[in-house]
Amino acid sequence: MQRGRILFPLFRKETQKKHLYPALSNKFENVGHVVGTLNGIEICNLDAIYIAPSGVQKERIKPEDLFIQDIQGRDLKLPPPSKALKKSQCTPLFMCAYTERNAGAVIHTHSKNAVLVTLLCDKEFKISQQEMIKGIWNPGLGRYNKYKEEIVVPIIENTCWESELEDSLRAAMHKYPNTSAILVRRHGIYVWGSTWEQTKAMCECYDYLMDLAVNMKQLNIPWHAVEWRP
Amino acid sequence: MQRGRILFPLFRKETQKKHLYPALSNKFENVGHVVGTLNGIEICNLDAIYIAPSGVQKERIKPEDLFIQDIQGRDLKLPPPSKALKKSQCTPLFMCAYTERNAGAVIHTHSKNAVLVTLLCDKEFKISQQEMIKGIWNPGLGRYNKYKEEIVVPIIENTCWESELEDSLRAAMHKYPNTSAILVRRHGIYVWGSTWEQTKAMCECYDYLMDLAVNMKQLNIPWHAVEWRP
Amino acid sequence: MQRGRILFPLFRKETQKKHLYPALSNKFENVGHVVGTLNGIEICNLDAIYIAPSGVQKERIKPEDLFIQDIQGRDLKLPPPSKALKKSQCTPLFMCAYTERNAGAVIHTHSKNAVLVTLLCDKEFKISQQEMIKGIWNPGLGRYNKYKEEIVVPIIENTCWESELEDSLRAAMHKYPNTSAILVRRHGIYVWGSTWEQTKAMCECYDYLMDLAVNMKQLNIPWHAVEWRP
Amino acid sequence: MQRGRILFPLFRKETQKKHLYPALSNKFENVGHVVGTLNGIEICNLDAIYIAPSGVQKERIKPEDLFIQDIQGRDLKLPPPSKALKKSQCTPLFMCAYTERNAGAVIHTHSKNAVLVTLLCDKEFKISQQEMIKGIWNPGLGRYNKYKEEIVVPIIENTCWESELEDSLRAAMHKYPNTSAILVRRHGIYVWGSTWEQTKAMCECYDYLMDLAVNMKQLNIPWHAVEWRP
Repeated sequence: MQRGRILFPLFRKETQKKHLYPALSNKFENVGHVVGTLNGIEICNLDAIYIAPSGVQKERIKPEDLFIQDIQGRDLKLPPPSKALKKSQCTPLFMCAYTERNAGAVIHTHSKNAVLVTLLCDKEFKISQQEMIKGIWNPGLGRYNKYKEEIVVPIIENTCWESELEDSLRAAMHKYPNTSAILVRRHGIYVWGSTWEQTKAMCECYDYLMDLAVNMKQLNIPWHAVEWRP
Repeated sequence: MQRGRILFPLFRKETQKKHLYPALSNKFENVGHVVGTLNGIEICNLDAIYIAPSGVQKERIKPEDLFIQDIQGRDLKLPPPSKALKKSQCTPLFMCAYTERNAGAVIHTHSKNAVLVTLLCDKEFKISQQEMIKGIWNPGLGRYNKYKEEIVVPIIENTCWESELEDSLRAAMHKYPNTSAILVRRHGIYVWGSTWEQTKAMCECYDYLMDLAVNMKQLNIPWHAVEWRP
Repeated sequence: MQRGRILFPLFRKETQKKHLYPALSNKFENVGHVVGTLNGIEICNLDAIYIAPSGVQKERIKPEDLFIQDIQGRDLKLPPPSKALKKSQCTPLFMCAYTERNAGAVIHTHSKNAVLVTLLCDKEFKISQQEMIKGIWNPGLGRYNKYKEEIVVPIIENTCWESELEDSLRAAMHKYPNTSAILVRRHGIYVWGSTWEQTKAMCECYDYLMDLAVNMKQLNIPWHAVEWRP
Repeated sequence: MQRGRILFPLFRKETQKKHLYPALSNKFENVGHVVGTLNGIEICNLDAIYIAPSGVQKERIKPEDLFIQDIQGRDLKLPPPSKALKKSQCTPLFMCAYTERNAGAVIHTHSKNAVLVTLLCDKEFKISQQEMIKGIWNPGLGRYNKYKEEIVVPIIENTCWESELEDSLRAAMHKYPNTSAILVRRHGIYVWGSTWEQTKAMCECYDYLMDLAVNMKQLNIPWHAVEWRP
């Protein structure tokens, strides 16, 4: 089991770091449930990727506990061996977004809204005509989605081990060039973007849309607007 | 697409500023979902309007990033050109409330409760006999609403571009002189008032009433009291 | 209309004050919605009652803005006349609990759960066999309620002006000697106790029970246990 | 009635303490409702157990107010007699987990989700095929649960006095060697683990799963996956 993966970027300037840490710790309540030690945030730039150790609680990770590797997966720096820390098992999943999609950051959560949506849909979560759709980047078209466009988020089946998700995650990335996220049934969501700021903002938009969709279902409101009026 | 608009007033005294900033950052959780970079708060006085740049995350805006313009829309001060920042596209919408309604502040949110209410109603959201109605100012009557009075919030249709909302927003302001807010279907709400404190308080009251209305719908309780008893 | 009433006790020791303020500002999220400027907290001791001014936002009240009066309602200290502040209109309602029930503190909120419960019940909200009932003091019996006992919270009708509630509030206090709270339909709840700590704790317990009751209703679970099993 | 039990470990190093306190006070919102003074957290090591006094609000407990006892229940240190504090009545329940299960920490909450689940189930709460199940330790198998495995949490009946729960709690611990938690109907949940970090993480995972289960019930989604598809 893979627990406790939080991955930070290497910042070139110390001043950036000061802004990022409060943003990460205080603002991530908006991206969905962040509980236990099972959530992951990975942010990289082209030079180095900071990877949190497995099984350590988010609020207790120290800078020296982080693994640093390059985009090819080569270790640049390791935590002191005396601490016996292990690198997050889902690192290959995050690497998919970097190698297949040229992402600058990946966020993975176990958002309750994401799990509920995967239980209400078959192979895809689709919604249209919601203002918040405009906050989702369409990588295939190279622009943000428009209000009247439909977003389609593929749902892949969960596996017993997170490392087994790699093939289906990669396949979905190829099959759905217009998506910035992939849902995993009964598990959660992966969201990627070019910067951590954009990725965090998209993660919030996806979670808002899924939260809304669950509420709409409870109120018998269809997810597509076509001719519908109350 | 218009992202990241947060607009601050020019304060004549530095001491006021110190009170405003914590109020804005800590207390806005009550006005509805504030996620992504798609929300807007604009507060002005008669001398100057501070406008946040587009596409910058709320918690990362620096004072020098703000645009300052007067009530006629003339630029008083711009961010340094080297930063290549753009003024929020929805500025004309905020200006409507200033020119048509003599507002001192406007808040725009993508509150989930607001979106759900626009999906449960046709042309207007109406509710009566709720104590919180007393927190909503009636500009037509020049006083706060009374407990037994009905508030009517018009719903206008969303458009592909936020700038296209200007005409229907202005028309609704003329047609509904008693409202301090306008809902935009599948999008959110605009609330205005004479000061930012009053506007923020009304925004919270509207969100409370819409949240309650959604819960009442789920429990099959009508939104109007007339003769109803459980 | 009565807005912005927050009333603080006169503390004999400065050290007590330091504990109270964070408790009030940070912990009141648990007692129900505290939005707009329509909520009230009044805490007194036998010597003096601190009363917040009307229409001022909770987070912006300064010590010199408070009114101080004794238990007979005589003014001991007023804010500077230059500020033109007005004493909270609901002061008489709070005084009921002091004179009729010998309370040491009163909290009034517009909790959404309280409003929903008044829409689901006729004259009384009754619930039994919930552990949290043990957190509610029974003034008639002079002890906390037991797990298997039923709590009964009377519901009085709302009025156009808060000051008109005084007679029915007083009548309910006499008719229901075992309650530490009174619900006001479509409005909220009044909770009183011997100290502000006990009152705050009971306010949280009542809100928990009402929140649970609304959820139970949505899931078709009866509020009384007698012979019920899933 | 037993109120206000929060029990802290004896730390060998002062530095550990600094990490624990913010973790406890800021992060416990994720483990379910922590309201009133009715919740309990007990954490021990093999040398000493710190026990909070009864009826004191969590945020107001001072270090000298704590009781310290050893694993056999012998007092090592008491609060000053002048304070007239009483040891938490549920201490024997926490001791069960130490003596029967060799636990290092126990957390008890009145989570609303836990109470709702005990009202939706008969003798056991069972759920399977949820990623978050992997965050729950299986003491019988000596490993964390796997994604496709079912977790079974026994539900015992509530009693009028918390001390009367001891026998049925102990019996359930013997009957269900694979569980790390026991639900008490209409009351809450007990969760134990080898360290406070693991116990807190499991408490969050259980609460997530119960929250999800309540939402699934509202949406008519079965709690077991076998052949189900939307």
